[in-house]
Amino acid sequence: MQRFSAEFLTTIATDVFAALQAPRAEARIVAEHLVLSNLMGLDSHGVVRIPLYTRWTREGPIRPGAAISTMQANQAVTIVDCGYNFGQVGALRATELAVARAKEHGIACAVTRNCAHVGRLGHYTQLAAEAGMFALATANSPNAGHWVVPFGGLEGRIGANPISWAAPGSVHPVLADMALSTTAQGKVVIYRNRGKQLPEGWIIDASGNPTTDPGELFKNPHGWILPLGGNVGYKGFALLLLAEVLSSTLAGNSMTAAIPDGTNGFCIIVLDIAALTPVDEFRRLIGEMTAYLESAPPAPGAAPVMMPGELEFRTLAERQANGIPVEEATWGAIRETAESLQVAIGEVS
Amino acid sequence: MQRFSAEFLTTIATDVFAALQAPRAEARIVAEHLVLSNLMGLDSHGVVRIPLYTRWTREGPIRPGAAISTMQANQAVTIVDCGYNFGQVGALRATELAVARAKEHGIACAVTRNCAHVGRLGHYTQLAAEAGMFALATANSPNAGHWVVPFGGLEGRIGANPISWAAPGSVHPVLADMALSTTAQGKVVIYRNRGKQLPEGWIIDASGNPTTDPGELFKNPHGWILPLGGNVGYKGFALLLLAEVLSSTLAGNSMTAAIPDGTNGFCIIVLDIAALTPVDEFRRLIGEMTAYLESAPPAPGAAPVMMPGELEFRTLAERQANGIPVEEATWGAIRETAESLQVAIGEVS
Repeated sequence: MQRFSAEFLTTIATDVFAALQAPRAEARIVAEHLVLSNLMGLDSHGVVRIPLYTRWTREGPIRPGAAISTMQANQAVTIVDCGYNFGQVGALRATELAVARAKEHGIACAVTRNCAHVGRLGHYTQLAAEAGMFALATANSPNAGHWVVPFGGLEGRIGANPISWAAPGSVHPVLADMALSTTAQGKVVIYRNRGKQLPEGWIIDASGNPTTDPGELFKNPHGWILPLGGNVGYKGFALLLLAEVLSSTLAGNSMTAAIPDGTNGFCIIVLDIAALTPVDEFRRLIGEMTAYLESAPPAPGAAPVMMPGELEFRTLAERQANGIPVEEATWGAIRETAESLQVAIGEVS
Repeated sequence: MQRFSAEFLTTIATDVFAALQAPRAEARIVAEHLVLSNLMGLDSHGVVRIPLYTRWTREGPIRPGAAISTMQANQAVTIVDCGYNFGQVGALRATELAVARAKEHGIACAVTRNCAHVGRLGHYTQLAAEAGMFALATANSPNAGHWVVPFGGLEGRIGANPISWAAPGSVHPVLADMALSTTAQGKVVIYRNRGKQLPEGWIIDASGNPTTDPGELFKNPHGWILPLGGNVGYKGFALLLLAEVLSSTLAGNSMTAAIPDGTNGFCIIVLDIAALTPVDEFRRLIGEMTAYLESAPPAPGAAPVMMPGELEFRTLAERQANGIPVEEATWGAIRETAESLQVAIGEVS
């Protein structure tokens, strides 16, 4: 596995998206988003997406450079119509608006319409936390992504809707970012490709029996992903629905409408901590919380207790120093995509 | 098991809390809260609490009639200092403030300080949803209630922090209300008292081994409750922390301070749906969502798919018609409490 510098990968990605007619500044927003995902170890949301986003631009739904419009942008709640620009561009606009409005009102919320794939959800809450804010974000998937069964059900009716929250910490933000199902479809693909069995409790086969065979998700008839929670999966189901309502229903979107694949609904709620508690005091309290939680001895065989995001910030430091490992197949697909757009790849670094 | 009318139980509870020096209107707020919990089938948050709240008033922390003060009450974010009045009185004030401010700003948030036990969390989100709002509420427990391990840990460091959300639906609100751990300590007590084994995956013994014996939670050394999620319990842990930060850290509270038992931190975020989408259209979209989700065939042996809150609203209708069943021991304890305060119990109905 070859390692590349963040700047090298960012330049390629920017050049590719610019060649797809994105304004250069917007191309760079998407590129930096993908590369930061790699830096933080979340490779499934990294440069592996360059060929996919290229396909989504050629075949829909992404429309590089599309105008983004906002409704009632001066109030604490805002709808951002992303016009199917890159989701990263639309969701960043929504986040920046919510942060600005939260500074004014104490709390603010932005939801999207017509938004392409927003990428790593934690990107947006992390930005807000770095600006001294608390942030909570959710996303949903269109019905083509309804791989998750409602609790007790035997047909998919909802996506692997993610939630993320972040807050300033004593060293770096506390940053949680996760699907509210047991797993996401993409993760099952990785297990299948590597010939590994899934952990127990993640999926059921087409008849509703528990299985650890990732292949069951791709048979005909195929299996389904379970909501978070096992025998209390009604909790995960209720959380998946929370993300659905925030990210989509609030903006007036139908759950059953034929919305193109490669899109997300997105919601971010930003709260100005300073309106309640001085941010320095808040950071101190999070530091105290971190020490208290990490003082719990590990269970037999378990790693030491870690705060949400800790692993990702450690990976960030390591990859900033040593570069980003990219699998040969991924690197090949990126090169092919660049060549197809006559984008020159500079000296590898 | 005897059945009683809601009004009969409400009158007894109001008389008891008034005898504890609560102003009559505030006594009735607490009474109605408890009885509505019973009506909706959530008996652990119902009139069984009358003797407990009486003890918490006599021995602390509850201070009936205490003044409640609010900071920056005109802004979209508010801290409500409940002065250890009944938690239901304080949390209701916070909810009413958040609803009023959301109508003005589109979104609003209230957090509490010095708040006694708030009871059923869904009470507050339900009220907001009945006012046409979307609401998200969380609560935390003081460190005496830290029965839940951080993911991978072997000592309790956090409470069974609950989350609730509600939104207007086509018939009644969608209403989710649940602990973000696998279970709450009180539920394990019920299993133990009934001599039943727990479902798998809820608790570990003192050595960290999985167990279904509820007695393990009360041995010396005792076991611990697991966060939601089993082998992906880092998700439940991150959600428990979300509730902790919202309900407590934002208001400037320390996670390790010696806060008395019988208290909660509380946070409610209210969003005025009408600021984004007409409420009638939102209700229609929720109706469409409900039909779509409930059209999933049930898995083998499972009950039909239900929306969050559906069971509780069905129980409400049944108990409004037929009365509230109260166990003999609970009824005896309530009578004793009333007698100790020289509260006369009227004709049973």
